[in-house]
Amino acid sequence: MLRLGLLGCGRIGQVHARSIKALDDARIVAVADAMPAAAAAMAASTGAEVRDVDAILSAPDVDAVIIGTPTDSHFDQIMGAAKAGKAIFCEKPIDMSVDNIRACMDAVAAVGVPFMAGFNRRFDPNFATLRARIRAGDIGAVELVTITSRDPAPPPISYIERSGGLFRDMMIHDFDMARFLMGEEFIRLHAVGSSLVDPEIGRAGDVDTAAVILTTASGRICQISNSRRAAYGYDQRVEVHGANGMLRAENQLESTVEIATEAGFRRDPAQHFFLERYEAAYLAEMRGFVAAATGGAEADPNILDGLQAQIMADAASDSRQTGQPVDLPAP
Amino acid sequence: MLRLGLLGCGRIGQVHARSIKALDDARIVAVADAMPAAAAAMAASTGAEVRDVDAILSAPDVDAVIIGTPTDSHFDQIMGAAKAGKAIFCEKPIDMSVDNIRACMDAVAAVGVPFMAGFNRRFDPNFATLRARIRAGDIGAVELVTITSRDPAPPPISYIERSGGLFRDMMIHDFDMARFLMGEEFIRLHAVGSSLVDPEIGRAGDVDTAAVILTTASGRICQISNSRRAAYGYDQRVEVHGANGMLRAENQLESTVEIATEAGFRRDPAQHFFLERYEAAYLAEMRGFVAAATGGAEADPNILDGLQAQIMADAASDSRQTGQPVDLPAP
Amino acid sequence: MLRLGLLGCGRIGQVHARSIKALDDARIVAVADAMPAAAAAMAASTGAEVRDVDAILSAPDVDAVIIGTPTDSHFDQIMGAAKAGKAIFCEKPIDMSVDNIRACMDAVAAVGVPFMAGFNRRFDPNFATLRARIRAGDIGAVELVTITSRDPAPPPISYIERSGGLFRDMMIHDFDMARFLMGEEFIRLHAVGSSLVDPEIGRAGDVDTAAVILTTASGRICQISNSRRAAYGYDQRVEVHGANGMLRAENQLESTVEIATEAGFRRDPAQHFFLERYEAAYLAEMRGFVAAATGGAEADPNILDGLQAQIMADAASDSRQTGQPVDLPAP
Amino acid sequence: MLRLGLLGCGRIGQVHARSIKALDDARIVAVADAMPAAAAAMAASTGAEVRDVDAILSAPDVDAVIIGTPTDSHFDQIMGAAKAGKAIFCEKPIDMSVDNIRACMDAVAAVGVPFMAGFNRRFDPNFATLRARIRAGDIGAVELVTITSRDPAPPPISYIERSGGLFRDMMIHDFDMARFLMGEEFIRLHAVGSSLVDPEIGRAGDVDTAAVILTTASGRICQISNSRRAAYGYDQRVEVHGANGMLRAENQLESTVEIATEAGFRRDPAQHFFLERYEAAYLAEMRGFVAAATGGAEADPNILDGLQAQIMADAASDSRQTGQPVDLPAP
Repeated sequence: MLRLGLLGCGRIGQVHARSIKALDDARIVAVADAMPAAAAAMAASTGAEVRDVDAILSAPDVDAVIIGTPTDSHFDQIMGAAKAGKAIFCEKPIDMSVDNIRACMDAVAAVGVPFMAGFNRRFDPNFATLRARIRAGDIGAVELVTITSRDPAPPPISYIERSGGLFRDMMIHDFDMARFLMGEEFIRLHAVGSSLVDPEIGRAGDVDTAAVILTTASGRICQISNSRRAAYGYDQRVEVHGANGMLRAENQLESTVEIATEAGFRRDPAQHFFLERYEAAYLAEMRGFVAAATGGAEADPNILDGLQAQIMADAASDSRQTGQPVDLPAP
Repeated sequence: MLRLGLLGCGRIGQVHARSIKALDDARIVAVADAMPAAAAAMAASTGAEVRDVDAILSAPDVDAVIIGTPTDSHFDQIMGAAKAGKAIFCEKPIDMSVDNIRACMDAVAAVGVPFMAGFNRRFDPNFATLRARIRAGDIGAVELVTITSRDPAPPPISYIERSGGLFRDMMIHDFDMARFLMGEEFIRLHAVGSSLVDPEIGRAGDVDTAAVILTTASGRICQISNSRRAAYGYDQRVEVHGANGMLRAENQLESTVEIATEAGFRRDPAQHFFLERYEAAYLAEMRGFVAAATGGAEADPNILDGLQAQIMADAASDSRQTGQPVDLPAP
Repeated sequence: MLRLGLLGCGRIGQVHARSIKALDDARIVAVADAMPAAAAAMAASTGAEVRDVDAILSAPDVDAVIIGTPTDSHFDQIMGAAKAGKAIFCEKPIDMSVDNIRACMDAVAAVGVPFMAGFNRRFDPNFATLRARIRAGDIGAVELVTITSRDPAPPPISYIERSGGLFRDMMIHDFDMARFLMGEEFIRLHAVGSSLVDPEIGRAGDVDTAAVILTTASGRICQISNSRRAAYGYDQRVEVHGANGMLRAENQLESTVEIATEAGFRRDPAQHFFLERYEAAYLAEMRGFVAAATGGAEADPNILDGLQAQIMADAASDSRQTGQPVDLPAP
Repeated sequence: MLRLGLLGCGRIGQVHARSIKALDDARIVAVADAMPAAAAAMAASTGAEVRDVDAILSAPDVDAVIIGTPTDSHFDQIMGAAKAGKAIFCEKPIDMSVDNIRACMDAVAAVGVPFMAGFNRRFDPNFATLRARIRAGDIGAVELVTITSRDPAPPPISYIERSGGLFRDMMIHDFDMARFLMGEEFIRLHAVGSSLVDPEIGRAGDVDTAAVILTTASGRICQISNSRRAAYGYDQRVEVHGANGMLRAENQLESTVEIATEAGFRRDPAQHFFLERYEAAYLAEMRGFVAAATGGAEADPNILDGLQAQIMADAASDSRQTGQPVDLPAP
């Protein structure tokens, strides 16, 4: 039975708590949040104790921590948890500073604790199935990957302003997915972006519509497009071309019902809400972390995956601003 | 070069004339129609001569006839063409009287001329592909066939009144399709029908919505449903279950374009017009007749197929009226 | 908090126990099973007590019972629970004897306890959505319903022998679905059936492939087909035609992944296992029962629905054996 | 009746001749080809005369020319035809030199003859429908266009070597499609490309797999990907995102038949052959040219469209080689 401390009881902390509840081999024993009411509510629903973060990090009855606090708290909590020898699950982005992530990587490596990065989409059954088929050779060597991610609607400007920008906040998931699917590191990136959805986003210095081309040393290509709007739901698709064919994962629709009228044949919109769309992924993710923390499995995605995605997000932000391609450093 | 006489220059005659124009090894040399203007127009567009029916049947420069006249003219024209040793293509239904069809069958057999019945749907590339895969064993032994046929809208009441009723006018195509796909004769039939689309159709003694169950001696089952209305286009589908899987043919939509909005994902309606939906089928049908008439191929479907479909249509009309199943005679 | 007694801890009892666990306003306090080990395991996983059936029926700390025992136990348990004033959820079929179901209906009505029949498919989100759209008038008045249900593979012959036959064991779900979708009672039924999947099933006096036509007083038509085999998964589809269009619910596939190769475009099989396919339905069903048992909602489907489906299943068995249609009694 | 001269009787010339045959208001009166046998065969099948190119250009009985000769003949033939006042249809690419195209544009403008460029895909019913819906405002202002074009298999190396490279030979169609769909000129382009399909193509200095990002002055984005291989057929798709939704056109499959087995649900491959895939487009294209040449319609696409696509193809070739984005000149 893995004993967990939950740092951060906001929306994503609640998602992970619900997942842990469904597992037989883990339970949350302590929770912390900057908002006492949030911590108390979480404690009530999980049966855990409210403690402060330091107490959790040093507690002998806590084997592992789930970090779902604001990004600027991650660094201290990771360093503290590593020092205390606790297994660590940390939400993306690990840190806005690549140097900080490198420091965390060193600390984690020094102690040898499992560290898992919160790229939940790798655990989506559709994307995981698609990747398994690539690895099984169903389409031969991968040549071209196309990733489409579109949010149903933009977040508030206040969120945009402290998000680090679309490439670090939103496309970072797609950078990780690109690496997950391609199986070869990218060496060069070119990004473009515009504010077409809401001029306020542009005035805040960010973009809401973007596209990136990535290439690997062997010449494989990945295209990513992002938008902060999609009338028809949360659009999350990947398409992978290999020497012998194509694999693609389509959206999950709200139901299998189709209506046919004079206007034609209409199916439902894609599921709108990310928690619904990735419900199965979040559960599988926690199952994966518990397996890694209890020693039965490699932590995957790990801190290096978190680092690489952040490096790519930084590079994309730069490329978008300069209008020039950026060479990516070797990992 | 097969020299053809075209009897009947109405809508279906025009369809066949257009198909013949596209073939290199056949041409229409003589045309006839009860309406002089129709015959003249056809002659102008094909380069053929206008003659009367008897002159065509006895003409030494006519090898074969295409009969697209009203149903009550078919019998005399078939008997005349058979006697004159001409290959015969005759639209469905061959005759409203099963006895008359049997007499034609005898006459055709006595002379040995090729006779092809106008069940155009057998030549639809989708249905033909589906059937070829059944014959290739792709789904193993056939167990259950489901046929759905729905017209976009009902014909005028005046047409309904002289049509012989839905089972003889519309479902006759599906009876032929059922035999085509099943590969075993049916021995029993139960039909139900109602007037739900237009009460005028009911007052005319006919139904506009109907369903039939057919069974074979070995216990295989076929379901057919028909309606005189379908808001979303001309609905023409078949689904065949076998020991190892299912084959189905879906509708042909007006384009491959899909629109996604808040309302969901919408594709186009099915093609509405039977001439557009079965354009390729009508061409393949004439190609098949020309091949049979010039000796290179068996006429398929033949006059026995026309007879069997008519027997089934009669039985379905009876079953619908009595509310009881009907045993079908062996062919 | 609704306090539940669970009668029967086999496969379906376990399904319901898992659903109850996910609800906040109900818990299982007592469990019973003819197999002590099954009851003990259920008690361990739910925290409930093992008791015998009579003790549960008379227990003051039990508000409602879930009956998931073998069919021949249902009658006594329903009568006992009704007498004790407990809300009742009973799996289908309620009883193999229509007279017994009528007696239960009288007993339940006399006491006024909520009674819900276990037709889980009504709670499937796809079918429930489809029906809501019919009721909203999206396709106008319903004219024709087509229901396709195919199991991935036949059950063991030992199960077949005591199942009451395909129409009572399998198609009973479709009879209920037909009523659920049509919104008008059926007055006449014609059934055919064969043993095509496994000759052992035929030797056991049952069929494994069947089709039924149902009609209502106003002339609406329903087609149902069933088979004990479907290579491509658990096939569960409905298609409803109305005056203004069609609604259909397609199968749930194992993932959204599609592969394209020289062989074409291939999507996954349909989910094979009924517990996976109907997982959401089983949960919604228990949510519905808890709502009914705690007074907030009408029990739906109720015991009359259970009775009607059983009457239809009996009629279909008769029709299949005699080869004649059967008139259905008014409810 | 438009009287046409056909310059070039190879594969594409034959396509256009077949289209003209199906039109009532145009006929080919003279044909020319460097290979006498090709010209003779075309003359036999069309009833036209064989003449040499100059004779056709100066013939008083020729109203318009269709230029389907090798690219390096286009310039002289266009200049000659313009001088002779004949309407001109010219296959893409108009010329490998942008300066030459500009000279042709001047000559055509000076005389005022209609000039239509052979971008057949604009006439594909699916793409034309999609674009009409964009123009009708069905998805609001366009934000992002994604174009996927993949050939079933690479052409011979001998063809590659004199093709001008993938961007000028293959992606030029997609550059035109991008302009056709976007409705705003592109100002900047970044291209990447690799030889992943066949190393011989790389050794010939070309790429077989490529991706491009294009941007407009208002920040709209277009992604294009190309490959010289697609196991599942000729892959031709577009997807357009606007403020209110998405429009996409899917591939045309070989039939509507689907097979379901243990392996899942499989539809046919996409049509493999470009002549089959674009059969309707080629016919509509000639109908459009005849309308323009006889004065009833604007020539569309015109020579400026040909110029712009060539400029973009040149820029993409440069960008791919330098690894840097390229600014596109205003038209």
